Amino acid sequence: MTDRLDQQLDFLVEIDKLKSITRASPIADGTRKENSGEHSWHLAMFALVLSDQAQPGVSIDRVIRMLLIHDIVEIDAGDTPIHGADAAKADQAEAEMRAADRLFGMLPDDQRDDLRALWEEFEAADTADARFAKALDRCQPPLLNMASGGGSWADYAVTLDHIDTRVGVPAKRGAPALWDRVRSRILPYFAAR
Amino acid sequence: MTDRLDQQLDFLVEIDKLKSITRASPIADGTRKENSGEHSWHLAMFALVLSDQAQPGVSIDRVIRMLLIHDIVEIDAGDTPIHGADAAKADQAEAEMRAADRLFGMLPDDQRDDLRALWEEFEAADTADARFAKALDRCQPPLLNMASGGGSWADYAVTLDHIDTRVGVPAKRGAPALWDRVRSRILPYFAAR
Ligand SMILES: [Ca+2]
Repeated sequence: MTDRLDQQLDFLVEIDKLKSITRASPIADGTRKENSGEHSWHLAMFALVLSDQAQPGVSIDRVIRMLLIHDIVEIDAGDTPIHGADAAKADQAEAEMRAADRLFGMLPDDQRDDLRALWEEFEAADTADARFAKALDRCQPPLLNMASGGGSWADYAVTLDHIDTRVGVPAKRGAPALWDRVRSRILPYFAAR
Repeated sequence: MTDRLDQQLDFLVEIDKLKSITRASPIADGTRKENSGEHSWHLAMFALVLSDQAQPGVSIDRVIRMLLIHDIVEIDAGDTPIHGADAAKADQAEAEMRAADRLFGMLPDDQRDDLRALWEEFEAADTADARFAKALDRCQPPLLNMASGGGSWADYAVTLDHIDTRVGVPAKRGAPALWDRVRSRILPYFAAR
């Protein structure tokens, strides 16, 4: 019989696999791609430090929890690069639902339901907390690309127009002043191309 | 002039370096050593999932924040393996204080003071929140060592007595039932040696 604590420990060992999911963006020094485990830490730090960029009523502690779990489904479903093709996106959503069933399903029922709901809230981006979390998830990769001299922008031949649409729109919904600043920081890269 | 938001963004890019600080323990599949960025994410997940192992009065959200920042000083001071030699520990404490000055000092004064105080609370391990955070920091590496077939125990020729002293004592102070379970999970490794 697996009791509550064993279920929790099995889940915590299983999600170690997030450290082996490779993302499209490099770490800031450009030496390798970022993994989704360390990315989740970095985003939680963005929420903690950039709390004054959140809209009124946002709970930073809920946003931190959301960001800690937001990529766990990638353990089964893989990462979807934001500058990748659209075609695979329906399949990806289906794969992520199955991943959420399996991974959150390892937990005791109450925690399974809580974390599943938190992840679905993030994905839907319909609450102020989720919109802020999404905005941070959009603002971090441009800063790493900029620090590393281009990163995934170079790999995917990304234009500033493309960024304004794919990244800027969701970023502005949750954190408009933050996005303006991030955009001003990345302009020199696109001006120089 | 560097304003508040620029200071915050510069800090967030700077702490990306935590992803390049290598720890003594491997990730669970044994393919490489864990880094301190992904470790910090994993520990925050331990706090979130193992909340019912905390003593009464512990604030899980404070513990999560504490664990997110607990290793940031390693960017300048490096990681200190728990099974390493004692001799260097005074120098290490000195180096960590200088690292805290520099790194938290990149933030606006209010955030510098808040995060510095939270880090010092973790280090002192004198509050219920900090004792729980420390206990989680002690319980995670044994689970990864076990998953990877020995990990840093093999590298440092660690005995169960050594673990009971170095790891078990602080782990039991903050999360006694959790440590009992983790200990029972690692016994087969030491029984087989
Ligand atoms: Ca993602």
